[in-house]
Amino acid sequence: MSVIDEALKANEMYAQHFNADLGRPPSPKLVIVTCMDPRLTHISEMLGLETGDADMIRNAGSAITEDSLRSLLVSTRVLGTQEIMIINHTDCGMLTFKDEELDAKLQKLTGTAAVAPARFYSFTDLVENTREQVQKVKSHPWIAKDIPVRGFVYDVNTGKMQEVTV
Amino acid sequence: MSVIDEALKANEMYAQHFNADLGRPPSPKLVIVTCMDPRLTHISEMLGLETGDADMIRNAGSAITEDSLRSLLVSTRVLGTQEIMIINHTDCGMLTFKDEELDAKLQKLTGTAAVAPARFYSFTDLVENTREQVQKVKSHPWIAKDIPVRGFVYDVNTGKMQEVTV
Repeated sequence: MSVIDEALKANEMYAQHFNADLGRPPSPKLVIVTCMDPRLTHISEMLGLETGDADMIRNAGSAITEDSLRSLLVSTRVLGTQEIMIINHTDCGMLTFKDEELDAKLQKLTGTAAVAPARFYSFTDLVENTREQVQKVKSHPWIAKDIPVRGFVYDVNTGKMQEVTV
Repeated sequence: MSVIDEALKANEMYAQHFNADLGRPPSPKLVIVTCMDPRLTHISEMLGLETGDADMIRNAGSAITEDSLRSLLVSTRVLGTQEIMIINHTDCGMLTFKDEELDAKLQKLTGTAAVAPARFYSFTDLVENTREQVQKVKSHPWIAKDIPVRGFVYDVNTGKMQEVTV
């Protein structure tokens, strides 16, 4: 059976005991940008957050791209979140390759060159990368100046968040 | 105390009982694209997934943008996931406004016009939007043709996933 079909079977069981009040009404105070890494699935528990407490943006490498800024603007300007937390993590897959290597591999595998995305945002320095992400958000002209933007590195060996000073 | 400071206090407690084997070694089989909505925090439980089972991409409206494609490529081509699941949900915040309204509001509030993001990807038809997202992924030349790409609507009132036929 495919992984998705198995997940759908599990969802049928889940729905039988579903509590529709969970996280209602949605009124998140916090928005988090973090990595898509499968070890970060329980980021809410790691931070003592309940369903309904936080909008969660996730992508490869917690990158601040045009798309994460789009989501951050919807979150803070439409949904009313008031703090921004950017969480990178140790042992990130984005430390394991270089953009140009993946680009070359995909061109070779598919025979198709030069399509978007133009960048993969792999990186080599976790702390410096976090710092740059915080600055990118802070310097965006549409992000409100009174919203705290703080960056962290989550250690997958200890479960601890370490704040990155900017 | 700020929400982030409270979360950091909770993380100190969490780390005291941290199990570093959780989700190790990371070998996700599935990659999910879903919304940043705070009610979707427990999407793994909804699908019977354990930590380590799935890469999770989240943004405003589960949009397939250049950035989600970037993450999908890293997930399938670098990390080895083999199936793609796109999950929209009922009562999505992206159904509550129009791009041009938010654009005008931000220009007025900040006095800064014409910056990226150029689009917010608000939408009016949940099912049609899901269908378009599936097609966007399927038609990308760098996504492997043998990877299933399936779209779903999650009902926040029942906890159920409904597949969208393409």
